[in-house]
Amino acid sequence: MQLGVVGLGRMGRIVVDRTLAAGHDVVAFDIDAEAREEAADAGATPADSLDSLAAELGEAKRIWLMVPAGDAVDAALSELEPHLSDDDVVVDGGNSHFEDSTRRAEETPAAYLDCGTSGGPAGAELGFSLMVGGPEWAYETLTPVFDAVATGPDGHARMGPAGSGHYVKMVHNGVEYALMQAYGEGFELLHEGRYDLDLESVAGVWNNGAVIRSWLLELCEEAFREEGSSLGTVADRIEGGSTGTWTVQEALAQEVPLPLVYAALSERFGSRADEGRFSRRLANRLRYGFGRHEVQRRDESESRTE
Amino acid sequence: MQLGVVGLGRMGRIVVDRTLAAGHDVVAFDIDAEAREEAADAGATPADSLDSLAAELGEAKRIWLMVPAGDAVDAALSELEPHLSDDDVVVDGGNSHFEDSTRRAEETPAAYLDCGTSGGPAGAELGFSLMVGGPEWAYETLTPVFDAVATGPDGHARMGPAGSGHYVKMVHNGVEYALMQAYGEGFELLHEGRYDLDLESVAGVWNNGAVIRSWLLELCEEAFREEGSSLGTVADRIEGGSTGTWTVQEALAQEVPLPLVYAALSERFGSRADEGRFSRRLANRLRYGFGRHEVQRRDESESRTE
Amino acid sequence: MQLGVVGLGRMGRIVVDRTLAAGHDVVAFDIDAEAREEAADAGATPADSLDSLAAELGEAKRIWLMVPAGDAVDAALSELEPHLSDDDVVVDGGNSHFEDSTRRAEETPAAYLDCGTSGGPAGAELGFSLMVGGPEWAYETLTPVFDAVATGPDGHARMGPAGSGHYVKMVHNGVEYALMQAYGEGFELLHEGRYDLDLESVAGVWNNGAVIRSWLLELCEEAFREEGSSLGTVADRIEGGSTGTWTVQEALAQEVPLPLVYAALSERFGSRADEGRFSRRLANRLRYGFGRHEVQRRDESESRTE
Amino acid sequence: MQLGVVGLGRMGRIVVDRTLAAGHDVVAFDIDAEAREEAADAGATPADSLDSLAAELGEAKRIWLMVPAGDAVDAALSELEPHLSDDDVVVDGGNSHFEDSTRRAEETPAAYLDCGTSGGPAGAELGFSLMVGGPEWAYETLTPVFDAVATGPDGHARMGPAGSGHYVKMVHNGVEYALMQAYGEGFELLHEGRYDLDLESVAGVWNNGAVIRSWLLELCEEAFREEGSSLGTVADRIEGGSTGTWTVQEALAQEVPLPLVYAALSERFGSRADEGRFSRRLANRLRYGFGRHEVQRRDESESRTE
Repeated sequence: MQLGVVGLGRMGRIVVDRTLAAGHDVVAFDIDAEAREEAADAGATPADSLDSLAAELGEAKRIWLMVPAGDAVDAALSELEPHLSDDDVVVDGGNSHFEDSTRRAEETPAAYLDCGTSGGPAGAELGFSLMVGGPEWAYETLTPVFDAVATGPDGHARMGPAGSGHYVKMVHNGVEYALMQAYGEGFELLHEGRYDLDLESVAGVWNNGAVIRSWLLELCEEAFREEGSSLGTVADRIEGGSTGTWTVQEALAQEVPLPLVYAALSERFGSRADEGRFSRRLANRLRYGFGRHEVQRRDESESRTE
Repeated sequence: MQLGVVGLGRMGRIVVDRTLAAGHDVVAFDIDAEAREEAADAGATPADSLDSLAAELGEAKRIWLMVPAGDAVDAALSELEPHLSDDDVVVDGGNSHFEDSTRRAEETPAAYLDCGTSGGPAGAELGFSLMVGGPEWAYETLTPVFDAVATGPDGHARMGPAGSGHYVKMVHNGVEYALMQAYGEGFELLHEGRYDLDLESVAGVWNNGAVIRSWLLELCEEAFREEGSSLGTVADRIEGGSTGTWTVQEALAQEVPLPLVYAALSERFGSRADEGRFSRRLANRLRYGFGRHEVQRRDESESRTE
Repeated sequence: MQLGVVGLGRMGRIVVDRTLAAGHDVVAFDIDAEAREEAADAGATPADSLDSLAAELGEAKRIWLMVPAGDAVDAALSELEPHLSDDDVVVDGGNSHFEDSTRRAEETPAAYLDCGTSGGPAGAELGFSLMVGGPEWAYETLTPVFDAVATGPDGHARMGPAGSGHYVKMVHNGVEYALMQAYGEGFELLHEGRYDLDLESVAGVWNNGAVIRSWLLELCEEAFREEGSSLGTVADRIEGGSTGTWTVQEALAQEVPLPLVYAALSERFGSRADEGRFSRRLANRLRYGFGRHEVQRRDESESRTE
Repeated sequence: MQLGVVGLGRMGRIVVDRTLAAGHDVVAFDIDAEAREEAADAGATPADSLDSLAAELGEAKRIWLMVPAGDAVDAALSELEPHLSDDDVVVDGGNSHFEDSTRRAEETPAAYLDCGTSGGPAGAELGFSLMVGGPEWAYETLTPVFDAVATGPDGHARMGPAGSGHYVKMVHNGVEYALMQAYGEGFELLHEGRYDLDLESVAGVWNNGAVIRSWLLELCEEAFREEGSSLGTVADRIEGGSTGTWTVQEALAQEVPLPLVYAALSERFGSRADEGRFSRRLANRLRYGFGRHEVQRRDESESRTE
């Protein structure tokens, strides 16, 4: 099979490499010339524009987009559109919002597969987990590629119609936030608690046979090995949050309570409140109001313009 | 009626003053001589020891302890014990744990009333809310004093047997934590949100007829008036937490979920994590682990010994 | 001043009655003829259509919409539009989303005031709390009416530009959810806890001088008085939730954590999960998976089609 | 090595079988004669009392207790005590509270190892994860047995002094509650959400390469395979909760916030509130109080005595 890959960042390159390794042909495009050259070195046919990528693919095109979610997807689709017809298949392997995917599936002349991709850079060796939404025939057509890019035949499945792949990936990420925070709470208590513990050793023993063993826990073990039991200079600041926010938004729409996912998302927001949490500042002041407890003041020298 | 008052801090003095104002006699003791003199100036008979306070009160003693919860209560009771018999009544008006009160009620030769006291310094003018546990006859005997110290006859009631007064006060405080944080969340969203709002004005309008009007909201209004809409130098640090902790502990014992009270208590704990929350630091690091997202590092110069 | 009032339900009638009582003239319209007649009996001039209401008001119209948030507001505005010019003022006193209000303010030929209204039916006697957004001149023009409908001059204020009134009301309602649940948690612990308590008496004492006294706590006291300490047949089911949902959505957009408001909203959603919470069902089953703990099964006879 | 095993339930039998399989000798006791016979059939030397077990073991006894946490441990230790001296080692492999373990370590004449054991029945084949607290020499002495009972040398480690093994296991279980609920929230949203999904397939794809893959997620997959995507008759009721409660209690003592663990524990408590949650019932009633929203009533026929 011949696959066009658009976007040759870390994740796109894994798609290229695993597809090539499985014996397929790859036509690769990125706006960055160096990325194109590197893909060519790896065995792909480089294309210096989306037009030439489309030309190279001929009839019954199979194109995998691995570009940042948002405008970049629409831009690529818009440029590809003149070249697409209904026997072509476009895969969006990024973290798009499922409603964007539903819209794109309707607007695109080709069959459209929204493909939630999980596994990160570690997927280079192991393969990804792929959650795919869209027409059954298109999913089946791409199966050889999915087998290659995923961990194997068990690493991908069609979830349902358009949007369902990114929907399931969105929820996956919401759960991911909660799992990280759940492990974090456990290790926080161990770190602050009664014993002086070697947290790498704790994580290691847990990863061998304990109920809570997991890949994330292996990453905890790695983190403690590399940063030390006190996590050294790692800051109390968690970036990101869009897929978790989408998960909570969708749960509001479905009237499904997600207290753990919400709590985990809140920790991210709270970690970025550089001026301190206003709600806590008010509570501090109210304790003076009703009980004449001393107001805790921040150091003038630390105070920043708000 | 003649009342002995032990402990002449801010709250004890309110008990003295309101009892005197209602036409009763007060014998007042504090380990601090100056506090005794001030109470004498206010019209109380000063006693320079618990022994002389007991001697002054004669038979059928009525004694109100207003000392810090914990060892000070046991110390006072232990010193008073030789002077007490079963027609005496001792009131503990502090924030004792209800299980201590139950124990003390059993150990003390006098009738024992545990009296949860709410209202803070503002109670000087308005009177307190008093939640009383213990024998009915003792509660009734003290009614003239309770009428004086409380806002009036509606401001006190017997909750039930020994410990129930402090039990209800403990729960009151748990609710108090949650209410403060609930208002705090609302004002935080208004402060961070889309409009540039005068929060004193918001609180003021809410306090006039809105569903959420309350005394705590009046204190919010006062806080914004005195500190400004951005709360000036008020720090993100909330001290205290013992009664909220007791509330959650008791709820664990009763298997009652208290998500809001717990969340409010957690904000206090979190506000005092000067080194940052370990759980968030781990989540920050894990995002690198699975996604190669850049690790946020804290400034070396800020880093403190852990 | 002459005020047109559109919508004569419970809240609209309070606007009519309080405006009349303050000596102003009211032209009143509702699609329900009976409601119009009742308003006429109360002293208003009835109008049998929006056209005739507009005609009756002449130049410099002042119109208060008190219709259900959503399409009804757009329908009324659309019908009024031909009669409106830029020296007219329209007030939306309902629970509209602030983004709808911002849009309507732009689309409407008249000056537009979004007016968050709190206080419920109890506002009939006391007056409402009014949070107003929109042009300053329009707010000032309507001041005599706001004085009448609110608790008085302190019961209303201009929050800021278009949308800010409904924005502040939205947040008010989010806080309201959390306050109700906070009191609920306290009373749940008292109800399930160690003592057999009279919850009306507890609420009563708290309402007299305690830190947590509030109007909502007075409503708790009333609830226990009318339903009993065990709340009789009152069901574990909380309807509503739109303004709380909006509050959480806006907080997500602002990256402000609202753990208490979210927890309170989650209780509403959870209370309506008639088939049980799926997450708990899975946890139940997982305990068998790792520990062979017996799976709790629901009675076949209770099981419903999902 | 010769090991005495006390308690031949499911977990105790795994200890026996894995120790025998590694070529060690086992002396086995249980109060149930049938359990003793089955252990004898498996190759252990049965003992019909703790006295005879102790006699059989001779000098330098190594005894593994696998009895229910609580009084059974104290009872076994008390019966063994006359036979123990300081060159003996007793292992408590159950879910004891770490403070009990600390106390027992002080009271027992033998060296005492508290050994948190995770993995459940699945450990029969794979081996357990063992978190051990107590004297280093005792831990080293038992290493051959730990190698056999655990997944291997990586499946056990000495956490620190007395109590630390059960402390780490307690925290493990707190995390376990949160992980289960986190997955539960994700699957609840997928179940209630926009697409008709095959949850076994979702879990399967996630378990192949996704960031959130884990053993608990494999158990989710198994649960959906065996019960169906809607979980059939599995009830919304989660039993258990003691180790999660201990975790929260300890976190209160350490002033560490655990919002996710607490939320997960709350779901357990809430799932067992057969009369409904009182807090929600009050909120339902309050909505009538301030807004005249209809009170939801429970069916008289359903109402039960409270």
